[in-house]
Amino acid sequence: MKLATAMVNGQEDVLWVANEGYVALSQLRAAYGGKNTPITMARLLADGELLNECRSLTQKAVQDGRIQKASAERLLAPVPHPGKILCVGLNYRPHARESQMEIPSHPVLFNKYANAVCGSGDAIHAPFDAKELDYEAELVIIMGKSCSQVSEEDALGYVFGYCNGNDVSARDLQFRTGQWLLGKACDQFAPMGPYVVTADELTDPDNLEIRGLRNGKVVQNANTRDMIFSCRYLISYISRYMTLEPGDVVFTGTPEGVILGRSPAERDWLQAGEHFAVNIEGLGTLDNEIGSSRSML
Amino acid sequence: MKLATAMVNGQEDVLWVANEGYVALSQLRAAYGGKNTPITMARLLADGELLNECRSLTQKAVQDGRIQKASAERLLAPVPHPGKILCVGLNYRPHARESQMEIPSHPVLFNKYANAVCGSGDAIHAPFDAKELDYEAELVIIMGKSCSQVSEEDALGYVFGYCNGNDVSARDLQFRTGQWLLGKACDQFAPMGPYVVTADELTDPDNLEIRGLRNGKVVQNANTRDMIFSCRYLISYISRYMTLEPGDVVFTGTPEGVILGRSPAERDWLQAGEHFAVNIEGLGTLDNEIGSSRSML
Repeated sequence: MKLATAMVNGQEDVLWVANEGYVALSQLRAAYGGKNTPITMARLLADGELLNECRSLTQKAVQDGRIQKASAERLLAPVPHPGKILCVGLNYRPHARESQMEIPSHPVLFNKYANAVCGSGDAIHAPFDAKELDYEAELVIIMGKSCSQVSEEDALGYVFGYCNGNDVSARDLQFRTGQWLLGKACDQFAPMGPYVVTADELTDPDNLEIRGLRNGKVVQNANTRDMIFSCRYLISYISRYMTLEPGDVVFTGTPEGVILGRSPAERDWLQAGEHFAVNIEGLGTLDNEIGSSRSML
Repeated sequence: MKLATAMVNGQEDVLWVANEGYVALSQLRAAYGGKNTPITMARLLADGELLNECRSLTQKAVQDGRIQKASAERLLAPVPHPGKILCVGLNYRPHARESQMEIPSHPVLFNKYANAVCGSGDAIHAPFDAKELDYEAELVIIMGKSCSQVSEEDALGYVFGYCNGNDVSARDLQFRTGQWLLGKACDQFAPMGPYVVTADELTDPDNLEIRGLRNGKVVQNANTRDMIFSCRYLISYISRYMTLEPGDVVFTGTPEGVILGRSPAERDWLQAGEHFAVNIEGLGTLDNEIGSSRSML
């Protein structure tokens, strides 16, 4: 299933992304005589039976031709309130090279927090002193089950699904100290979406075309098979150290083609009014505009 | 008020730490004819009126001599499920020197996640390959109100309270890559407690004696006035970049005296069976034992 989270009639709701358009899962359930209560992504993540019930309903709806479209006022990130946002740095060799950093022998992990989450269509408003705004197209893993010390072999069994992500980075803030957090964790620096594709429909996350488009022009173009550390490796590795929970997300790293990768004179940082889109095979397109910077204190 | 979070009769409850012992806020409220529903720290953080109601009740109880003690089965961290855990590195000059790092001109920020949270009395079980376990006694700020781009002058008005924290660090994991996250964010690496002292009772967090005790022996001994970046500065600085929410916590950095600060030959890393306690003026004592390491996959 493709599932989006959206504001519908002023409430957070989950939309099934059908060929014909968006269908609100709560309305679909009510139409088939089920409970008419809101369905949130948090509930779907916590309750596998509810997810299965929704999957059956969508299949029934396709058979019956009973598609009642909903209009989303605003798309949120598929998981609007993740517990953890883990990010992997330098996970494609050419990107490590363009960043003039060593090829890592272990995953380089850093973080964002839920304040950074936004959806496709949201504008990104950088802090007033972030002058070196850059993009990073990335495959995002959304965890579906709690796991600790899971093996590589079993790792993908704990995944809820996958979506596009943009690891927005303010390079001046990122390198202000040795720790990258400040330039990575600003409000709206973790756009995700437009929807999640559940893991049953995407069995091989490590072989997907991934593209980043700046104002419609392709500037990043690679395949997730070029990742140094695969999705299953990353989940297994992280789970050795910290328990992963449903709704936790992992940004798996960006391929080459970021602005930082150019010679200093050619670094034309993102400016207000520009668009950046992330388009991974089968995951739709995440598109965000750079808004005006936030004003000073 | 001093408030602890604890398991009482199998449920999370908030305890008022009175001179005579623990008093469950929910029972106190019921005793005065109020609603008999559990009071969690999340509810107190979200609802200032509930906090004020509880404050009045505790004052009434003292006047009336009506203290009904509760027995806590297990203390949790005062905020058991923080949204963000921000940590400040190298915030005391002598600690920066002992770590052979530069005195920072900006706060060095890194993170933990909620999986790392545990309470006083909990044992810390390190990952199987974390061999260089170290302690860091720290003052922890617990945010009480949402804030973005708050001035230094106003910053402390957004604080819920303060508690002891131990920024447990596995130095081998911390320095495996350039980003410290892995050695900081392991399960149980953020003990906090035993209780929070609300901000109305602790008006100057920047002048508190802070001590770290290894098996009862003082190994860290300083005053929070020696912090390079004060509490009000840290809150203001962080809020320029990310919106802070009620229940977010900030570990403000550790003074000198950590194991990493010794010459390599003298680094006697923490071993199973050892205790480390953090004791900040007015904040009680946070005490944790190092448990056995977790077994390999």
